[in-house]
Amino acid sequence: MDIKAIVEESDTLPGRVFDLVVQALIVLSIVTFSVETLPDLAAGTRELLGVAEVVITLLFTLEYFLRLYAAESRVGYALSFYGLIDLLAVLPFYIASGVDLRSLRIFRLLQLLRLMKLFRYSKAIRRFSRALVIAREEILLFSVITAMLLYLASVGIYYFEHAVQPDAFKSIFHSLWWAVATLTTVGYGDIYPITTGGKIFTFVVLMVGLGIVAVPAGLLASALSQVGMEEREEQSQGR
Amino acid sequence: MDIKAIVEESDTLPGRVFDLVVQALIVLSIVTFSVETLPDLAAGTRELLGVAEVVITLLFTLEYFLRLYAAESRVGYALSFYGLIDLLAVLPFYIASGVDLRSLRIFRLLQLLRLMKLFRYSKAIRRFSRALVIAREEILLFSVITAMLLYLASVGIYYFEHAVQPDAFKSIFHSLWWAVATLTTVGYGDIYPITTGGKIFTFVVLMVGLGIVAVPAGLLASALSQVGMEEREEQSQGR
Amino acid sequence: MDIKAIVEESDTLPGRVFDLVVQALIVLSIVTFSVETLPDLAAGTRELLGVAEVVITLLFTLEYFLRLYAAESRVGYALSFYGLIDLLAVLPFYIASGVDLRSLRIFRLLQLLRLMKLFRYSKAIRRFSRALVIAREEILLFSVITAMLLYLASVGIYYFEHAVQPDAFKSIFHSLWWAVATLTTVGYGDIYPITTGGKIFTFVVLMVGLGIVAVPAGLLASALSQVGMEEREEQSQGR
Amino acid sequence: MDIKAIVEESDTLPGRVFDLVVQALIVLSIVTFSVETLPDLAAGTRELLGVAEVVITLLFTLEYFLRLYAAESRVGYALSFYGLIDLLAVLPFYIASGVDLRSLRIFRLLQLLRLMKLFRYSKAIRRFSRALVIAREEILLFSVITAMLLYLASVGIYYFEHAVQPDAFKSIFHSLWWAVATLTTVGYGDIYPITTGGKIFTFVVLMVGLGIVAVPAGLLASALSQVGMEEREEQSQGR
Repeated sequence: MDIKAIVEESDTLPGRVFDLVVQALIVLSIVTFSVETLPDLAAGTRELLGVAEVVITLLFTLEYFLRLYAAESRVGYALSFYGLIDLLAVLPFYIASGVDLRSLRIFRLLQLLRLMKLFRYSKAIRRFSRALVIAREEILLFSVITAMLLYLASVGIYYFEHAVQPDAFKSIFHSLWWAVATLTTVGYGDIYPITTGGKIFTFVVLMVGLGIVAVPAGLLASALSQVGMEEREEQSQGR
Repeated sequence: MDIKAIVEESDTLPGRVFDLVVQALIVLSIVTFSVETLPDLAAGTRELLGVAEVVITLLFTLEYFLRLYAAESRVGYALSFYGLIDLLAVLPFYIASGVDLRSLRIFRLLQLLRLMKLFRYSKAIRRFSRALVIAREEILLFSVITAMLLYLASVGIYYFEHAVQPDAFKSIFHSLWWAVATLTTVGYGDIYPITTGGKIFTFVVLMVGLGIVAVPAGLLASALSQVGMEEREEQSQGR
Repeated sequence: MDIKAIVEESDTLPGRVFDLVVQALIVLSIVTFSVETLPDLAAGTRELLGVAEVVITLLFTLEYFLRLYAAESRVGYALSFYGLIDLLAVLPFYIASGVDLRSLRIFRLLQLLRLMKLFRYSKAIRRFSRALVIAREEILLFSVITAMLLYLASVGIYYFEHAVQPDAFKSIFHSLWWAVATLTTVGYGDIYPITTGGKIFTFVVLMVGLGIVAVPAGLLASALSQVGMEEREEQSQGR
Repeated sequence: MDIKAIVEESDTLPGRVFDLVVQALIVLSIVTFSVETLPDLAAGTRELLGVAEVVITLLFTLEYFLRLYAAESRVGYALSFYGLIDLLAVLPFYIASGVDLRSLRIFRLLQLLRLMKLFRYSKAIRRFSRALVIAREEILLFSVITAMLLYLASVGIYYFEHAVQPDAFKSIFHSLWWAVATLTTVGYGDIYPITTGGKIFTFVVLMVGLGIVAVPAGLLASALSQVGMEEREEQSQGR
């Protein structure tokens, strides 16, 4: 049994074990990464997390070289989407050694790409892709309409509220934040209209906007159930 | 007319009366349980609620033994999902006697399982199950994507807001609370971004997230209307 | 041309004029009713609104007697749904004369039923009824599930938050208000969990709840588009 | 190669370049317009923005005359929807010269119509129009029902909350603002019920309202996916 079969196949027992170990490591690295941000950690815990970080990164490095070794085309793997993610998941660790830790923080963000590796093992993603292809144009259209609506809403509310609330609605960009929080119906409550005109404008924008912003999700759901239906039909036809 | 017919069947008059009485008791026990939590109750009311509690529990105990007696396989019933719920609905009451009442509170939570007994009498639940089976894989996929999105959003906002709002965005776990409140569009307003970067990030996350988080409900609705359509077709074909 | 043709038919010109006048009066009465609640009205405006109120009520009374006169079966109309609404739309005005005005306020609520008269003239409502019949059972099931979910969420959050926030989460009924504001994603921000347990519980409840609460709207939309499709098919088949 | 081919056609290379330049100018004018509203701009930046404004407006003016010149019927173009938008996009600039700048602000709103020119170049809008035609009646019906629901909710909450919160729920119009923020689930948190009756009323309104307000988006999504399906079928049939 060679390394190729273990690393690349997931039908064999060693292959499945390898996959499960890698996935467990990804989850573990996410957990340690999150726990590290807790402010009042004991020194011992922080030390343990540092050790775990080193071990996980070394294991990911080993995995990267195993995949590189097992790949049909090594350059192909290194330049593939997942190859780059695998590399980016370990590289920041080695680059950081010797550099000031704080400036490194921004690179830590890249470690999150480890998360995306979870996708590689999922077959279900294919159905999602098909649904996206079906609903692609409509989703694009609604994204454009939503963007326009957000902008028009920002300009409108700016003219209604700027004079009365110059701090909250300081510029169209500040108004845009209101438009995002309102049209997505999040409504934090940090910024809202207080003039009668602004409230009526908000009402109009919401009535139009709710029928727009919620459509992409509906389209995606509709396309997904259609793809599901087609697959079930294909299966029942024995294909 | 034996006990079996009363307890287990719901087509006969005594069976239907038995079912209705049990359901009324469940609702009554929920009401008394809720009223008990009101802080400024008169001593008389509190006493009355205590008596009602005892009576209802005794009746549920009687029901449990009746069901146990009437069941084809007594061990089978005792170990079945509903058998366990029936038991858990009365057991805390007997375990509590002699023990301090306050430590018991956590067990009271289990009494809520009484609620789930309402399900047993419903036939409509079957259609819901069928729809869940149809949309199962997609709902699972979207749950995973939603979880990933929540995590990525938490990490992102942590990097944008932690320096400016160290109390609100204390750690990635605190940021996760923001991500939940934001992506579900609840938006309590207890935690929200104030930096420009954080606001732009929130905008991007919401644009992507709204098209993801709302999809499972759409899938479920779509599957349900499909199941309903199939059933109507089957009926019209005289099957 | 007799009164019957004017009051009951809407194909003839006088009938259409009669209908339009009645509808305009309904809208006018809604506007005056709303304006009356404004706190800082001038005495002259208030007087004018009072006069308008009297005139509108007299015209509605006249309309009621015309409909009563024109009806095939007078008792039938008087006891019909719309007959009762027509009566309730004017009765509070006559009952009020002589009684203290403030105690009358609650009866004013009934005047709102005037609004419902707008429905009589709409044909589109039929399609909506058909869709409701199609999706009836599923909507009922989801209402029950939603009610159970709301209750379970209330009890759960009560146990997590009561000790820390005894004022906000005073009883299960107070927690129910939180559950309503949260699961509908309104999230006013007047009540929200602050304990870690309560936040995790909120997360779980929302993940389950969003897939439940939004389903009835999806079912209704699905049923409506189905009814619309069937109607278009019937029309294209020349039926 | 005459001007007509450049201005009106988008299949030829010069025509495509012309379109792209116009679109880039529109986006640029939106950006400068937004940046101008920022309060703490340096004098140099503000000057630059002013120059950009003049240049963009002159180019739009040139474009307007080119389109006027190239049009088959010049009066027809001038009076067409897009002709008027093209005119309104530049006119405020010339009207403003000589007038006080502050009074001009309200006219600046019209410049936003430039945005709508983006639509001219989009073909995808046709599918959206077809879906709107399919779902038109249902969307209209639900708009009417939503309006009625909003009004009834306002009156109801006014009676419950006015006595306790006379400032927040000052009149039915103020309550309407609550109804909009609540039924759209935005929930800013600036106005919410505090009485038990008001909270129960809110619960009832939300349970009914959520199943109403979210329906138009569902209908639109359903109609859009139907139009998309029909188009794919037509294509696969070689039509």
